[in-house]
Order: sequence, then C-alpha cells, then structure tokens
Amino acid sequence: MRTHYCGLVDESLIDQTVTLCGWVNTTRVQSHVVFIDLRDHEGVVQLVVDSDTAELFKAAAALGYEDCVRITGAVRLRQAANDKIRSGKVELLASAIEVLNKAEPLPFHAHENPGEDVRLKYRYLDLRTPDMQRKMRTRIKLVQALRRYLDERGFQDIETPILTKATPEGARDFLVPARMHEGEFYALPQSPQLFKQILMMAGFDRYYQIARCFRDEALRADRQLEFTQLDMEFAWVSERDVQDLTEEMIRSVFREVMGVELAAQFPRMTYEEAMRRFGSDKPDLRIPLEFTDIAELVKTCEFKVFTDWANHEDGRVVALRAPGAASLSRKQIDDIAAHAAKHGAKGLAWMKVDDLAKGLEGVTSPIAKFLDDATLTAILAATGAASGDLVLFGAASYKSASDFMGAVRIKLGRDLGLVADGWTPLWVTDFPMFEWDEEEGRYVALHHPFTAPAVDDVADLRANARTAVSRGYDMVLNGNEIGGGSIRIHNSAMQSAVFELLGIGAEEAEGKFGFLLDALKFGAPPHGGIAFGIDRIAALMAGTESIRDVIAFPKTTTAQCLMTGAPSPVPDKQLAEVHVSVRPKLAPTADGTAGQG
Amino acid sequence: MRTHYCGLVDESLIDQTVTLCGWVNTTRVQSHVVFIDLRDHEGVVQLVVDSDTAELFKAAAALGYEDCVRITGAVRLRQAANDKIRSGKVELLASAIEVLNKAEPLPFHAHENPGEDVRLKYRYLDLRTPDMQRKMRTRIKLVQALRRYLDERGFQDIETPILTKATPEGARDFLVPARMHEGEFYALPQSPQLFKQILMMAGFDRYYQIARCFRDEALRADRQLEFTQLDMEFAWVSERDVQDLTEEMIRSVFREVMGVELAAQFPRMTYEEAMRRFGSDKPDLRIPLEFTDIAELVKTCEFKVFTDWANHEDGRVVALRAPGAASLSRKQIDDIAAHAAKHGAKGLAWMKVDDLAKGLEGVTSPIAKFLDDATLTAILAATGAASGDLVLFGAASYKSASDFMGAVRIKLGRDLGLVADGWTPLWVTDFPMFEWDEEEGRYVALHHPFTAPAVDDVADLRANARTAVSRGYDMVLNGNEIGGGSIRIHNSAMQSAVFELLGIGAEEAEGKFGFLLDALKFGAPPHGGIAFGIDRIAALMAGTESIRDVIAFPKTTTAQCLMTGAPSPVPDKQLAEVHVSVRPKLAPTADGTAGQG
Repeated sequence: MRTHYCGLVDESLIDQTVTLCGWVNTTRVQSHVVFIDLRDHEGVVQLVVDSDTAELFKAAAALGYEDCVRITGAVRLRQAANDKIRSGKVELLASAIEVLNKAEPLPFHAHENPGEDVRLKYRYLDLRTPDMQRKMRTRIKLVQALRRYLDERGFQDIETPILTKATPEGARDFLVPARMHEGEFYALPQSPQLFKQILMMAGFDRYYQIARCFRDEALRADRQLEFTQLDMEFAWVSERDVQDLTEEMIRSVFREVMGVELAAQFPRMTYEEAMRRFGSDKPDLRIPLEFTDIAELVKTCEFKVFTDWANHEDGRVVALRAPGAASLSRKQIDDIAAHAAKHGAKGLAWMKVDDLAKGLEGVTSPIAKFLDDATLTAILAATGAASGDLVLFGAASYKSASDFMGAVRIKLGRDLGLVADGWTPLWVTDFPMFEWDEEEGRYVALHHPFTAPAVDDVADLRANARTAVSRGYDMVLNGNEIGGGSIRIHNSAMQSAVFELLGIGAEEAEGKFGFLLDALKFGAPPHGGIAFGIDRIAALMAGTESIRDVIAFPKTTTAQCLMTGAPSPVPDKQLAEVHVSVRPKLAPTADGTAGQG
Repeated sequence: MRTHYCGLVDESLIDQTVTLCGWVNTTRVQSHVVFIDLRDHEGVVQLVVDSDTAELFKAAAALGYEDCVRITGAVRLRQAANDKIRSGKVELLASAIEVLNKAEPLPFHAHENPGEDVRLKYRYLDLRTPDMQRKMRTRIKLVQALRRYLDERGFQDIETPILTKATPEGARDFLVPARMHEGEFYALPQSPQLFKQILMMAGFDRYYQIARCFRDEALRADRQLEFTQLDMEFAWVSERDVQDLTEEMIRSVFREVMGVELAAQFPRMTYEEAMRRFGSDKPDLRIPLEFTDIAELVKTCEFKVFTDWANHEDGRVVALRAPGAASLSRKQIDDIAAHAAKHGAKGLAWMKVDDLAKGLEGVTSPIAKFLDDATLTAILAATGAASGDLVLFGAASYKSASDFMGAVRIKLGRDLGLVADGWTPLWVTDFPMFEWDEEEGRYVALHHPFTAPAVDDVADLRANARTAVSRGYDMVLNGNEIGGGSIRIHNSAMQSAVFELLGIGAEEAEGKFGFLLDALKFGAPPHGGIAFGIDRIAALMAGTESIRDVIAFPKTTTAQCLMTGAPSPVPDKQLAEVHVSVRPKLAPTADGTAGQG
C-alpha cells in the first residue's frame, strides 16, 4: 500500500514519486497552498497541495486531525528546512490523496495534556503520540536485546504454565475455577520459580523466559496485577556464575539500547553494610549522603528517645548530615519530618550548624538543651558536620530507624538536587535467611522458601536461624531492585528443614510441594538463578516514573482496564458452568465492618 | 563447577584434564575397572575408574542410575570407539568423583516404556531423556528462529494482557474473580485478537507476540487448556503482504531448524476447491487421493440414498477411488465404514473393481444391483477406476459428505501407505464469511467476527450473507491448519453490520466491543494478520503426534497437571476474599441429569 515510511523520506528520494500512509498530524491553508504534516511511527513529513489542482486542493483542505490517509507525490527540496526531523529538508508535492478512514472529532488532543484516565480509556490514541511510541519501543528494544544476548549464550527459552497450582503465599493468588473439576481451582503463577527449578532437574541446564507473573494485591503506583520478568535459572553453578553473566548482560543491553556504558565491575555490598550506611537494601548510590551511627555517643545523654534506643538491644540512633542544608526553612524541615512519619518515624530531631566559628553557640537545635557539650562536639566530629550543614536524627528499632531515615535520605537528596546524573548499579548480597514476622509470630523467608542458606548443615541452620545468612543476591540500579535471585536448595532434607522453620508443616509441605521434595531426591543438580523486572528496567531506560508508560495495556491502581472495561460482571449461567457463584453481599455488622459471607 | 559438557568431549581434548557434571547413565564393573556413562544435555561420555585407586574405585562402584555427580579426569583415546556419539573416540580416566546428589531408586526407567501418566507425574525424569530433550529443543529452536526472523524485519514484540475482558464466545472463557471488584471477573484471552488490532490503530505498524492463549473446553488429544501462538498483525496491508512475508518466514525456519527446503511458492487453493477435491479445508496433499462428484450421474438411479442427496439442493454424492485397494478384506472395509460413521456417515457404499477385462461382471458391490450398466460405466469413467481399485461412496448433505469422506480419504491414505514423505504446505483462501448454525439458528463467523468480507459495501454483504466470501486465509501443512488469519474490518459501520448478522445486538456489541467500535472511528488503518500454532508446528518438526511432547509441563486430557496436582481445592476463606463460593452439588434430578445450582 505504500512505498516508504513518512519519517524516513529524505533527500535521497528527491524527484522520486513515493506513496505514504499515515495520520494527518496538522493541516494549514496558506495562500492557496495546503500544508499537511503526515505522521507514521517513524516520524512526520510535510506534504504540499497547491490550488492548481482544484479537486485535490478541496480534498486536502477537508482533511482533519488523525484522518488515516494514503498520499502519493513527488519528493522535492523544501524552501525552509526543519533541522529537527529527518525529513525536514524535503516535502512531497501531492498528486493523489486517498482517505482510508476519516477520523471523527477526537475525545482529546495530545497537547491538551489529558488526565491518565482519559489516556487509558483511549489508549490507542495515546500510544500514537511520538512520546509514547518512544517509551514503548524502548521496552521492545530492551527485551529484544536481552533475548539476543541469552540466545547467543545457549540459554533455552522455555514456557511454563499459566494455569497452575496455588502456592503458599496463596493469599495473593489469582484463582481460576476448573470446569472439569467441580470445586477445584487453578492459580495464576506469582513466578515460574518451581517450574524453573524443575527444569534444571530435567536437564535444561540454562533456562530463561520473559515470563508473565501475577500478584493479586492492592496496587501501588509502581505495581500491576500482571507484570513481566526475565526469569533465569542455571544448573551446576555458584553465585558468581549467575552474577557475572547477568551483570555482563545488563551492561550489554544498556550499551545497545541506551548507548550507556555501565561500570566495568558493579560494586558489591552486603545487606548489613547497605542497611548501616544507607538504611536500605536497595541504596540509591547517586545520592552522596550516608548515615552515621551515634548510639555509642548518646547512651547516657538526657534526651530520652536517644538513650532508650541507644541502650536497646535492637535499637538504632542514626545521624544524617546534609551538606549546605542549614538554610532550609522550618517549613521545609517539617515537610521532611512529615515524610519520615509516613515511613514510620515517631519524630525527627534536627540540628542546624549555622557557624562553627562561633563554637557550639553556632549550632541551633530543639534537642541541643538535652545534649551536653561533649556529646554535641562528639556528634559534630562523628558526622563531619561543617558550617552550613543540617544534621537529622532518627532513633527507633534498627529496622524502623533504618527505614524512615533511608526515606529521609532519598527525599533530602532529591530536594537538595544532590542526585547525580548517570547509572549506579550494585550487587547487594548476604541477606538474612529469615525475618521474624511479629504479626504472624513466625519466620518468613526474606527471598523465598527455596533460597539456600549459606550453611550446608541442617542442624547448624536450625541452631542459628535468627542470624543465618542466605545465598540470595539483588541487583540494584539507582535505588531500584531490578533483579533478585539466589542459589537454591538442591537437597530434600534441607528443603524440608527450611519449610519447617517457616512454619510449613510436613503435611502442608507434602500437599503443596511434594513434587519438589520428590524431585530433589532423584539427582537434582546444584542450581541457582535470578529474575529481572522488565517493566521497571524499561521504565528506567525510557526515563519515566511510571511502569504504566511501558506497558501497552496497563491496569489502573484500582485494577481496571479502562479501555475494555475489565473486570466485569458475568452471567450466572456462565458461573454455574464452572461451579462457582458470587457470594451474597452481607450487611455491615454493628462494628461497621462487613461480615463474611 | 565444570570445564566442559559431557557430550562435547572429543579428541581435541586428549591429554587434558577436564571436569564434568552430569547424571550417571550406566555403570558397569568389568575386570577391576568401573565404566561409567555420564550424561548431560549435550550427550554421553565414558568414564573409567580402575582399581589401582581403591578409594575412587569404591566410590565409582557405588554410583547408581541418575546420581548427580561431578567428575574430574584426563581425556584419552578409547580402545573400542563408538561411532554413534561425538565423544565416542575418547574416554575420561577419572581422578576425582564428587557425588552432588545421590538419587533414590527411580519410580521408573526410561527403557521400561512407562505410561504417559507416570511420565507426566515425574516430568523432570521424562524430560531428562535424550528423546524428550531433542523434542523440546526443537521447539525452542523454532521459536528462536521465528523471533530472529521477525526482529530483523522490524516487527515489534508487544505483550498484551492475560487478565482481560470476557468475549462473546464467553462459554469457553476462563474466569478470574476480581478481589477489588466484588462480583466481577476477568477472563483469560482466547487470543490477543482485539489487542493486536488496537495496536495497529495505535501506530505500531508491525506486531508480533509469542502469545499464550486459553480455551476452557473439553480437551481432545491435540488440545491444551493453554496453548501458544505466534500472533502477528500488520497495518496498511492486503492479503498478499501478510501471506508472502509469513510464507517466506515459514520457509526460513524450516530451512534453519530442519534443514528442509519447502516449496518456493506454496500452492493456493480456494475453500471451495479444497472441499470439492478433498472434503477438507486443510487437505493433506501428501495423500494422492481425490474426490469425484457423481451427483449428476446418479440423479435417477434406483439407489435411494444417492438419488435423495443428488437431487437435494444442499446434497453431495461423492466417490473416492483408492488405487489397488480392491484387495481389502470385508473386515478392513468395515473398519473404514466405522471410521466414516465416527465422522457422521450413516453408511458407506463401496465397489470393488476386480477385473475390468470381464466388463461390469468384474465389479463387485452391494449397491451394484441398484445401478444400471450405464450409470456404473459412467461412474467408472468419472473416477478413472481401473482393475484392482476400490471405490467408496458417500452421500449426505454437502458438509457431512465432505467431512466423513475427507476422514475416509485420510484413513485410506494411511492404511494403504500412500502418504508421501516430505512437506506439503498450501494456502487455503476465499472462505465463506458465515456458516449457518442449525442448533443456534443463526450465522456464526467461520474465522471470527472481525474478519473483513470481500465486499466493501454493507448493503451488499447484508443482501448476500449466505454466499459472502471473507478475506480470511489459512496456512495448511500436511493436513494441519498451522496458521490462520485475515484482513480485518477497519470500518465501524461494517463492523456493526457484521455483529448484527451474527446476532450480536447493538447493545451487546456496545457492551463487549464498544472500545473497538470507538477505535475504528478515529482513523483506524486498514490492517490484517495471522496466528500460527506453535505447539502444532513444533510437534510436526519434532516428528511427534502429540503436542504434549513439545510442552514442558502439559496438562492431561482431563485438564490436570499430574506433577503439581493442579487444579486443587482452595480453602473457603481464600474464596471469600475474592467474593465467590463453590456451588453446592445438587442431587441428580428424576431424569438423571444434575440440576443447576
């Protein structure tokens, strides 16, 4: 239907007759000439229709925004070149115009900056814009580059089932009623974890899949019900084999897609160090701010919050120096304190170092009165605070203080414009094997229940569960965990022991993971792997905060597709065929909560 | 952990020390030497341990089938070479053996030819066998080759949602209850059809996806609940653009994966011709048998079944000549008749041409007595039957006669060993737009409701719906429909008209397809596409009848995963969270059917 793409017409085609297809981007009638900008995915080209050809002129003048047309014409040099676009030196003198599909008046124009709801409803119009085309095509290039890299290295792309069995974190499973098995359900996979491990036991050696995963939980800004990960698994490997190959892979795709050269060797940091220095297991190293632990300095001071936590077995008192931030207003500091509170802080102490030439007189702080001069001096020395700096303090449990001071660090970095340009990847390693879940009163796995502990001995793990370190690792980029993986347990006894420590009884383990425990008995090789979040990496590459910009048909934060109207009610007859019914809505009970149907 | 793959150790490594990982395939103790065959996905290599090293000898002698081990040793020439394998000229003199994972006694040995149920339960053991590795890796190569072909040609690999909206053929939808929207459901896609069309309207121009699709229907031997298609769509194209590119693509992947050169130009056949000559819209051209229509010859004969259908507006009387098949026994012919009956035949007439030298005396047939000599002679002439041939007859409605005689043709071709070697692709085109569904009393779409009719005019289509031809096309290979596609409707009025002809009212259309009808109004480009069945093509390439052999974790014909035990019951608490409950089982009603809950 066409001979060339609009955006690629250039001087090499001068005097040739070409046929283009595309959408009318703009029309403009000027002294007996109609100028049309015609657009396809490659870009825009200018068409010209003059009034000598009355019929054609009339057709051209009648064209509207987003009409879908086919136009033939001769390429010629343009009088006033547009250097911004590839086709900017030329134009087409049109000789034929065919309207393939007239566009009705659009619900919005791109330049009107419509709200996301409107953009999602008319997703096809939004995706037509050059900005969205660029973002989506960045994702496509990323996936293509990843596949090529892995194909060339002997990785096997293997599909695993979408209709599968409910997992232990079943609360987040999507359920699918089975027609042939009354009262039974499939579940959509939260990841292909067990299948990829089974594939290693099945002799596939090097596996990958661009895998769709599902998690039925309240959506945050950066989550989707369904998401995509590059899922990988290797047999007969140790941590470094997985890390070295995937690090090189990420370097390679950044080079190819972005023209960016990442560090020749990604820094490595233990979980303990990351928490200690940055209060996060995914530290954004672009921000040059670090924690100073000052518990030792305030154990006996008169500020009760400090002394309480400084003397608590699981407490932490942390100082964060923000260079040059003494000029922040009281309101700005309040904003930061509010941000800290959102992340669990009960309060945020601060200290402005206005002028050290004045000695401690030059220090302003609501808590200065509780700190003697020696303590103040020691804090200034420990943090390295200089005139003009602001120091913020957090005291709480180790986890909580780390969390909210980590959040303060990010906010300060952004507010003060301290976030460096560029890309700062790193590996975080040596994660704790378990976390104690206060609410559930049991251990939970920090990675997942199939991650190997650093010790090989079951008795050793049992004896030291609280401090046990796993063989898990995360790849972090600019403060985002873009990949996470581990060496897996390949021994049936160890796997059973870990299930037990996680409170999964023998019977439950057999029912849910019997096939895994079996498979581990028949010569399972040592194996490990990793999964990368494609949506997040694509968003980072495309320079957008929202992964929705790199997903063709995303759902809203209320789990809806505004274009198709999913989810939607279904006739009861259809539900009967799969043996379920909608539970009747119950009236709220006296205490205002809804009863359980 | 290793330096080389087992199957790739060869003479180039002689005198080198290598470390291998793999599974113990066999062990054999022979005059103070243990021979071990060690296997990985690349193949097998022989290891030797002699009794000079007592410790090692003991370890080697203790190895069992499928133990997972790591062995170091020096490569040397073997005394008796095994030409069948790459490593057959060499062996390893082992110097270290590490048992990574001892295998318990296996539930079966591959050579015991276990039933499919056992193979599926212990899928990881089945997949470890060289035969299954070969089949699965054929599929992987196919997908890789397809992707590379399309990536190089500017196709954009775009993911479409798995959680989407119920479609009109909703009876086959898998439903997923929505947690955040009480009483509402997502559906799993039967194909990404509408999304890919929307992508064309969104400016993506050339799309593909290796897409998972879902169909909740009773499983036949060659179906799965979830299956994989190569889904493609092109903007601004006509039929030939789609066909030419994908035909070249299929040629290319057969060359690359199989080393097979398919026809430089695939034959093309209309639906009408395919039905007329072969009684199938996916004729297997490897079988050199064709129909002869004889209605004209039997309009006035005395065999009522023939005359009834020969004079029926929608009847068909067809003869099928099987060269050399007069020697078939009565039992063999009965078998064929039974096969015909399974495909809807009420009876199957036959005629043996024993010896034409005897004239019509040389013809044996239970229906000969109803046919006068002129008719018999005319039938012999029309079918070209010669001495030694068998002629089979079918008379029924056009569709039914075509169906069962088509099935007879396939069976005869196989039984008589007439199926030629090689690959016979073709295009089938000019499908009817609609089929009349007697049961539902309405038209149904032969392809799907988005397929464009050959006419552009809505009034014309309405007036001639019964005979209207669509712009659909199928790619057929060796009797399998491996791909199907069409040019789509890109005009809102035509789409509405087709919905209406299919009995989808305006309100229903708006509710289900409002977004499509909208999108068609805003400058939708002409577009078309196709989808290829990856599972089927992979099975054909791998030389297996069953697509289960090229799916890593398939479900049984009763829709179960025997390895994981999906589907399974789910606690009611979990169902409550997604607002559904299992319908109570109802006692069978008086007439023996179950009531509806």
